[in-house]
Amino acid sequence: MRVEFTKYQGLGNDFILIDNRHQAQPCLTPDQAVQMCDRNFGIGGDGVIFALPPEGDTDYTMRIYNSDGSEPEMCGNGIRCLARFLAHLEGKPLQTDITYRIHTLAGTITPSLQADGLVKVDMGPPFLVPQEIPTTLGEGTDPVVNQPLEVAGQSWPVTCVSMGNPHCITFVDDLEAIDFQTLGPQFEHHPVFPQRINTEFIQVIRPDYLKMLVWERGAGPTLACGTGACAVLVAGVLTGKSQSQATIELPGGPLQIRWAGEGQSVFMTGPAEKVFTGIYETG
Amino acid sequence: MRVEFTKYQGLGNDFILIDNRHQAQPCLTPDQAVQMCDRNFGIGGDGVIFALPPEGDTDYTMRIYNSDGSEPEMCGNGIRCLARFLAHLEGKPLQTDITYRIHTLAGTITPSLQADGLVKVDMGPPFLVPQEIPTTLGEGTDPVVNQPLEVAGQSWPVTCVSMGNPHCITFVDDLEAIDFQTLGPQFEHHPVFPQRINTEFIQVIRPDYLKMLVWERGAGPTLACGTGACAVLVAGVLTGKSQSQATIELPGGPLQIRWAGEGQSVFMTGPAEKVFTGIYETG
Repeated sequence: MRVEFTKYQGLGNDFILIDNRHQAQPCLTPDQAVQMCDRNFGIGGDGVIFALPPEGDTDYTMRIYNSDGSEPEMCGNGIRCLARFLAHLEGKPLQTDITYRIHTLAGTITPSLQADGLVKVDMGPPFLVPQEIPTTLGEGTDPVVNQPLEVAGQSWPVTCVSMGNPHCITFVDDLEAIDFQTLGPQFEHHPVFPQRINTEFIQVIRPDYLKMLVWERGAGPTLACGTGACAVLVAGVLTGKSQSQATIELPGGPLQIRWAGEGQSVFMTGPAEKVFTGIYETG
Repeated sequence: MRVEFTKYQGLGNDFILIDNRHQAQPCLTPDQAVQMCDRNFGIGGDGVIFALPPEGDTDYTMRIYNSDGSEPEMCGNGIRCLARFLAHLEGKPLQTDITYRIHTLAGTITPSLQADGLVKVDMGPPFLVPQEIPTTLGEGTDPVVNQPLEVAGQSWPVTCVSMGNPHCITFVDDLEAIDFQTLGPQFEHHPVFPQRINTEFIQVIRPDYLKMLVWERGAGPTLACGTGACAVLVAGVLTGKSQSQATIELPGGPLQIRWAGEGQSVFMTGPAEKVFTGIYETG
């Protein structure tokens, strides 16, 4: 096997990008992706992203294999990296202004490269109906906003938002005082979340600047979670704790998130950087 | 900055190899090596190894920057990778039989590529005098063999060996029953080891097959430790628990170790594999 690839990262969330424009199916199996994502025996990465030919009314198709071989519908940090990779493949200059329509398993997503080098992504509207998140919290169809949830012998006011994947957001006075390693798994496996949950702990520095720690479902603490930052801004607006546009500071760096209100799309703007190009050869 | 590199791994211990044959000083600073070794924002690796021009009566010089920017004297897994890299740079076929004399900060080391693809390294003789290890265990100049050491409220029979770096080896009945995360730090910081210690827990499967868990000084549990495997075989011979040649099974895979007895060199034979070639570019 001989595979040319380019490594990109967005807030430390890192991906192996493959130019797969010549055929509709990924040129690698999930097992090969797992091997390549191994950080000691392989290239190392959170996933492999394939740039595939378009489907329907789009420019390209994106597919991702995670480092465990599973295939997520979408990935906010990953699609920013894909947009940069596509501009590179097309020979576009770095300070370019271009929007791609990308077919994903979560529908069409439109990342835009900005002249400042950042990438803005329309992440679609949030889902707020409890059954859609899903959670058994809340009454009927009302959004779950600041509802008390008992975890580790303490009551936490939580807000639940889905961005295609489920998030539980809780605002705290001091992130440093949070026993993250203990609380993360207890939120994740709490019986009110039948499909488990991604949990974000948030400290409001200013209404336009929130600090976030994220515990990802199945992964634990990560440097960045794009959908999580979007869910956090939505929760901030719903609880009155943040403005409709704010910087969310994650361990891997900042994202700009904007949401005009119910029914509207959430927009995420953040970095994506090429790290290196490579040729992987085995056997 | 634009750097061409090749990534190699030996038992999961992975290195960024740089062709630095054109100048006597590494082409990167320790800070740049730290950046490149970052597993999310950089290439990822346990260290950067430079193939430098020879000094004295050698073929090449090796220098290493660890992922934390420090510079070790030598690295058993790293020098196997360097030998493969040098053969590749010289255009040698894969099944070649060649020995390199490598100048290192620990003296001249001679790795030999074998026709079976493995690399054999003369690791030099072990140091057994307590002051040289260093440890305050033992009386005067006698080797520390099966001496009782109190750790975590229990007495452990330990054997101490230096391979240029200090090792404390203890044989146990069942590796699975060992509370490694608790014991590792307590051995490492035990007052009888003034420069701290690398600790190996060993289960003897057969006299020619030992299973090893290693807690590295400053790094914690690792997939592989070449000098550790050498020290283990020496300890096995000194305690009568192993033959003079044995397979040491580490979490990252097996090494073959041979030692003919006091005053003799320890020989380590193991794999080194090219993973990928790359070009790293930053602003």
